Amino acid sequence: MDEDAIRRVTVVGCGLIGTSVALALRRTGAEVLLHDRDRIALATACRRGAGTVLPERAPRADVVVIATSPSAVADVLRDAQRRDLGRAYTDVASTKALIIEQARSAGCDLATFIPGHPMGGRELSGPAAARADLFAGLRWALCPNPRILPELIGLATELAVRCGATPLRIEPELHDQVAAAVSHLPHAVSSALAARFAAADDTTLSMAGRGLQDVVRIAAGPPALWTEILEQNARHVAPMLDAVARDLTAVAAALRASGPGGSRVLAGLLGRGNEGHANVMAARAAMTAAAGTSPEVSSAAR
Amino acid sequence: MDEDAIRRVTVVGCGLIGTSVALALRRTGAEVLLHDRDRIALATACRRGAGTVLPERAPRADVVVIATSPSAVADVLRDAQRRDLGRAYTDVASTKALIIEQARSAGCDLATFIPGHPMGGRELSGPAAARADLFAGLRWALCPNPRILPELIGLATELAVRCGATPLRIEPELHDQVAAAVSHLPHAVSSALAARFAAADDTTLSMAGRGLQDVVRIAAGPPALWTEILEQNARHVAPMLDAVARDLTAVAAALRASGPGGSRVLAGLLGRGNEGHANVMAARAAMTAAAGTSPEVSSAAR
Repeated sequence: MDEDAIRRVTVVGCGLIGTSVALALRRTGAEVLLHDRDRIALATACRRGAGTVLPERAPRADVVVIATSPSAVADVLRDAQRRDLGRAYTDVASTKALIIEQARSAGCDLATFIPGHPMGGRELSGPAAARADLFAGLRWALCPNPRILPELIGLATELAVRCGATPLRIEPELHDQVAAAVSHLPHAVSSALAARFAAADDTTLSMAGRGLQDVVRIAAGPPALWTEILEQNARHVAPMLDAVARDLTAVAAALRASGPGGSRVLAGLLGRGNEGHANVMAARAAMTAAAGTSPEVSSAAR
Repeated sequence: MDEDAIRRVTVVGCGLIGTSVALALRRTGAEVLLHDRDRIALATACRRGAGTVLPERAPRADVVVIATSPSAVADVLRDAQRRDLGRAYTDVASTKALIIEQARSAGCDLATFIPGHPMGGRELSGPAAARADLFAGLRWALCPNPRILPELIGLATELAVRCGATPLRIEPELHDQVAAAVSHLPHAVSSALAARFAAADDTTLSMAGRGLQDVVRIAAGPPALWTEILEQNARHVAPMLDAVARDLTAVAAALRASGPGGSRVLAGLLGRGNEGHANVMAARAAMTAAAGTSPEVSSAAR
């Protein structure tokens, strides 16, 4: 990889993700130009050292990162391409197939667009919550059209690596299915549990420990953004929600049955829960270890 | 409170909770005697400095803490009382009404038994995972019979305070309902989500981030113990599981409907999730702050 391929990046959208990308890139010495319709968000990102304001007559960037809300990506991409803001364009939205379809419909040039999705996030939002290490040790999905120029894919790959992430090329449909499982479903489940405490009394709340705190942490995410994300990936998320609901209903029925049969149902689900937990932790440990050897991993991913 | 009221404590059951109680008490200078049928667990707890082995001719303790599996509490309590091992007896089981009923049926002396439940835990189990600060800043529920001698309730209260917890006197039925909400329901929900990853492929697992990791953390708890806990509190847990399942099913239906009505359902649940999360975090912050002023809090709770 040519380490100097990315010299200038323009980030459109100074929320949590856009500003975190900008902070990470600044650390690697890249010039970062920032844009946001929200002047306060833009000023906050600049003050945090994420970059400087994109001028009216913008110089061409190596990569333009579109980090707006998912529903705005296609329009922002089309406008950015008309202004010729960059060589390559990518986004950070949580679903990919629909974004690509919207970009096509909006008349975007798909020959320079490498759809992306960094798997990092926080329960907090906005540029004040941004962190340069938000993506360290995490996957960064890239869903390029196979006919795109390899050098442009290389730019998106380098962007991910410079943010400390491990790029993964993946088909948009498969990405959406995986993102539904590891991100969208957990968000909905955490929210459904947290919602039970919206009207909880003080005695109940005072008895909460670290366990509940962890399970509901991601339920703090912004509802408007997550409504968009869940709707954009409804096709994959809905059946998974039904499956979890069926399991919970089965556990409730087993508890009411109270007998050896019921105990087997409970122990079975709890045992599979142990296995799932172990799988997730092992994968996180492997990813974190791999992040320590990112040069090889990144070339393998290219 | 007489700070010297507790000089000697006997802990029966050297698992995560029993050994953590013992470690916390040792820190405050109490003599701790340990017992466990599992010789390896007992030796591990002793080696960690949690106390010394309870001798055959056991000296009388101020408090005997029964930290066995929930289903064994009543029998162990009866045997301990027959051996006159202590002035006061308490337990740490996660449900209270059924334990009290079992103790009554087993012929225990309820006049010296103050049922208890510290709200601390870990996803790891056994004495090696024990920590002296496991209960710091957390509630410790106490469900004494109103006719019990105040000095014995005082001993149980002091035990909780010496472990860094904030005691709360609460009716057994109310305790079980609250414990179902803040502990048993979250465990089942976390397990049902984690179970989805028991057979997940490497690509899916590699895409998991911190969000999923946190939501499934408590799903690592021992299935045999949690089967017992859920069954002991089935009456309170089952309807809560059904309610969460209904919410998840409603979200799935809203996603399939795809329109303004569906969006309102989604945004409504996610908004209530925000509120519930904020309530839980505010309560945890208040408890942690109160832990810094434990003398006043503990006398208020007495």
